[in-house]
Amino acid sequence: MSAQQTEPGAPNTRPAGRAETPPTIPIDLPVGGRELLGVLGQCELVDFEVLSFSGEFAPTLDDRIAVAELATAQFKRFNRVADQLHAHGWPVGDSLEAFREPLDAFAQATQPTDWPTAQLRSLLVSGLRTDFADKLSAAWPEPMARLISPGPVAWRIADFANRTLSQSLADDPDLAGSLALYGRRLAAEALGQCQRIAAKEVELTELVASAVPRPDDAQTGDMAALGAVSVLLEQLMEGHSRRMARLGLAS
Amino acid sequence: MSAQQTEPGAPNTRPAGRAETPPTIPIDLPVGGRELLGVLGQCELVDFEVLSFSGEFAPTLDDRIAVAELATAQFKRFNRVADQLHAHGWPVGDSLEAFREPLDAFAQATQPTDWPTAQLRSLLVSGLRTDFADKLSAAWPEPMARLISPGPVAWRIADFANRTLSQSLADDPDLAGSLALYGRRLAAEALGQCQRIAAKEVELTELVASAVPRPDDAQTGDMAALGAVSVLLEQLMEGHSRRMARLGLAS
Repeated sequence: MSAQQTEPGAPNTRPAGRAETPPTIPIDLPVGGRELLGVLGQCELVDFEVLSFSGEFAPTLDDRIAVAELATAQFKRFNRVADQLHAHGWPVGDSLEAFREPLDAFAQATQPTDWPTAQLRSLLVSGLRTDFADKLSAAWPEPMARLISPGPVAWRIADFANRTLSQSLADDPDLAGSLALYGRRLAAEALGQCQRIAAKEVELTELVASAVPRPDDAQTGDMAALGAVSVLLEQLMEGHSRRMARLGLAS
Repeated sequence: MSAQQTEPGAPNTRPAGRAETPPTIPIDLPVGGRELLGVLGQCELVDFEVLSFSGEFAPTLDDRIAVAELATAQFKRFNRVADQLHAHGWPVGDSLEAFREPLDAFAQATQPTDWPTAQLRSLLVSGLRTDFADKLSAAWPEPMARLISPGPVAWRIADFANRTLSQSLADDPDLAGSLALYGRRLAAEALGQCQRIAAKEVELTELVASAVPRPDDAQTGDMAALGAVSVLLEQLMEGHSRRMARLGLAS
């Protein structure tokens, strides 16, 4: 569904369990805006879950507490997206539904089973999200740019992950091999699921493509949009490789 | 350690990943106060984790979102306890450490593997926590009573759990047998772990006992304190049975 399909009279009920907060003002969204909020919302939900789950691998109670605190702080980003969907009268669950299967498949394929891998996942996913938001927000007006921004909690998550990961690698340099392998698998899975979403969600793809700078002589239309998204994905993969290299991990 | 062992010069550093918030004023705490905060903090942390984990069983995306939102709202109670520990200069992880093993053992023994059981766990644990706080807070001054109160989010959690659980039981009345069994196991595990903690944490036991009304001719001393805690545990078990009965589950 596109932004034009807003039903102004749709009931703006809050999901079960939400506290009362002042109503959010709906911001102007282009076609594909609902889908952009949907994919971001599902990313936030899955990230919250993976981050929360990683507490079970924490070596100390302080680390376990830190992970729970970061997860709850990160979930505020979900609420920001959900509030905006509400403000437009779009049911939250329905708006996220199209992205559930691909993002759950990504989470399942990259589910960490130990502490260093959980921290590497945090760092890499947070990096991809931040780069994605940076690339797009340059082209968009302030309220939309702010809405897709991962915000200061992304830095706290990356900082904590960097610190604990450097410690794990210092304690056991042999970890580098398996972590490098994990990083490559994560990149491949992320790329694959993004391409699946791009191919299926035409309006979202057009919207993302419209924010990616292209040479003047570029084609227009669906194929051009997919091409622009490919350029963006390549740039995200370069950022990913740089982050791996900074940790001394081959990518 | 007891409240007398506060080190006023101890560094009041925040745990990794905490955002800056205004400093909390330390409230007057009796002997055993640090242990009371420790056991409450560990309860909040474990409850947050179990609640977050239950999202994976949610039948719909809306239910999964609701569970994540309730878990993050519930975690504010952890922050309230952690802030108070900080205000006294007591490291958070250290203060919770003594309660990690018994509460993890409880969580593991009662870990739900499906949606209705996860909701029943939510409801029963929330009920026990609320009853415990009600019994104790009547005897204590306002700031301490407020600190141990499970707060309005406990009602939201119980309300959501009641609603989804009634739906599950209406859809499949045969669930009543296995849920009743689970409820009995949860009660036995809770009782066992509380008794272990009471036997080991003498100052906490004295503090809890001091808040339980006793007949005028009751003995004093360690055994009397353990006796008073047993009376409290019996009352909590009566509340548990009433909650089970309201759901039509044999206890």
